[in-house]
Amino acid sequence: MAPIRLAIVGLGKIARDQHLGAIEATDGVNLVAVASRNAQLEGVHCFHDIADLLASDVGIDAVSLCTPPQGRFAQANAALDAGKHVMLEKPPGASLSEVYALEALAKAKGLTLFSTWHSRAAAAVEPARALLVRRKIKSVSVEWKEDVRHWHPGQAWIWEPGGLGVFDPGINALSIVTRILPEPFHLVRSDLTFPANRAAPIAASLAFEMVSGTPVSAEFDWRQTGPQTWDIRVETEEGPVVLTHGGSRLIVDGEPQIVEEDREYRNLYRDFVSLVRSGTSDTDFSPLVHVADAFMLGRRIQTEEFED
Amino acid sequence: MAPIRLAIVGLGKIARDQHLGAIEATDGVNLVAVASRNAQLEGVHCFHDIADLLASDVGIDAVSLCTPPQGRFAQANAALDAGKHVMLEKPPGASLSEVYALEALAKAKGLTLFSTWHSRAAAAVEPARALLVRRKIKSVSVEWKEDVRHWHPGQAWIWEPGGLGVFDPGINALSIVTRILPEPFHLVRSDLTFPANRAAPIAASLAFEMVSGTPVSAEFDWRQTGPQTWDIRVETEEGPVVLTHGGSRLIVDGEPQIVEEDREYRNLYRDFVSLVRSGTSDTDFSPLVHVADAFMLGRRIQTEEFED
Repeated sequence: MAPIRLAIVGLGKIARDQHLGAIEATDGVNLVAVASRNAQLEGVHCFHDIADLLASDVGIDAVSLCTPPQGRFAQANAALDAGKHVMLEKPPGASLSEVYALEALAKAKGLTLFSTWHSRAAAAVEPARALLVRRKIKSVSVEWKEDVRHWHPGQAWIWEPGGLGVFDPGINALSIVTRILPEPFHLVRSDLTFPANRAAPIAASLAFEMVSGTPVSAEFDWRQTGPQTWDIRVETEEGPVVLTHGGSRLIVDGEPQIVEEDREYRNLYRDFVSLVRSGTSDTDFSPLVHVADAFMLGRRIQTEEFED
Repeated sequence: MAPIRLAIVGLGKIARDQHLGAIEATDGVNLVAVASRNAQLEGVHCFHDIADLLASDVGIDAVSLCTPPQGRFAQANAALDAGKHVMLEKPPGASLSEVYALEALAKAKGLTLFSTWHSRAAAAVEPARALLVRRKIKSVSVEWKEDVRHWHPGQAWIWEPGGLGVFDPGINALSIVTRILPEPFHLVRSDLTFPANRAAPIAASLAFEMVSGTPVSAEFDWRQTGPQTWDIRVETEEGPVVLTHGGSRLIVDGEPQIVEEDREYRNLYRDFVSLVRSGTSDTDFSPLVHVADAFMLGRRIQTEEFED
């Protein structure tokens, strides 16, 4: 079967750090073009933007969108309209209504749409999911605490409406929890802490319940200095199941487990190849649904101004 | 075919003003029970709550939930679990994740779930929809402006997180617009005005775009005194299509049209009977999706304190 001819749109940090190497390492997909306002890549066709790419005679089958979510609807819509399969970085878009519209367009066109969640492809996630299906869960607690000054220095856009604030990392935790728990859960309380001078939250304290009533709590905080925390702890009747380091390590009943080497983005491209080949889509937007709920039900708490 | 044996849960103002008369007027459905903490109804079985109702030997096939959205998930979940069809007042729940969970439960059980939008059942909506399929739309503008002191005097809960503020009426407009437009649309700007002493917005200014790029604007305001405005204006190349009075009147190219008498709730119960008989569900949550997006992307503007 001929490899998928892929173009990357948006050649920023995430594309260079993760996507290029993962594509190189994945059978069944070849990078043939990039579209980027500011950057060029040797050895492939380069375009200023997706419109130029789609208008060219360079043959592509699919695009991988690595641009910020705010502009992505128009790009994905143009690609689908031109008959190309589409892979979306997380979060899949700036709004739920736009990603549902893309889902409907892909379906109508018979094209693959893949809404990726890289943390969900982390090494400990699938083993944890398989284990939790067989256990009785008593409670779940998520702690996702990092230093925004270290990870997002000077990125003003993350503090703007649509930038999601602390949910930019928090949605990674939600993408894991929605995958490993055997039941859906829904929000019952949301406390959002906003710096007085910013439009997005710097911290969030969330309480959910699974359909069975089992509690799920999540604490997201961007003010953590020193050691960073990206942990999910599931208490079960048989003992605790704990994912640490953003889903890459697993500790079951106190015993660290051997999990595969972490290869989040290679897993994503492997899955994209299989989705395209089988003519299917993966459009689980549930992490973004939880974030939208957290804003809709959020109680606002104001805190001191934030400058970085 | 035997009529559906229905129970109403929550015998408040909306149940008495609308549901009881509509059920009485609809073939194929009989009210046999009510569950209400504070109220009784003559001639039917009365229970304190849905748990007592479901534990009783009164045979019912379906429940219609007229309680406030905050507590409705547990009630709907219990009813579905007991094998009953469920009809939900608007908005269908307090969060999107909970209504999606209900949708999955109903599907798994082979039961009907009907997420109702009473304004969508207004007399001018279906004629407008049928007309707009055949026209080229240039722009859409929604004005939904009413006096909260008149319509919601002293209702503290609408100002709390989850109470939705001005989106409580605004979602009615969104339920009409999502039905009459031939394409989906998504949010591109949201300005939300909050009274300094309240957790929910008193006004919202929203800009959307249809997939084709056509602009849709919505202005919701709860500070309107004097004449109230519930209008949707669709500019088309052939002339304007205007719905007024909350979707009950239609003006096409300047000419008022004769539409049927308004019978929103009778239409809803007629549709519920058909859904149950055909073994299908109607779970279009798109109006609530737009509200969640408006909060997630909303820029907050603070205004003077509100007291009523």
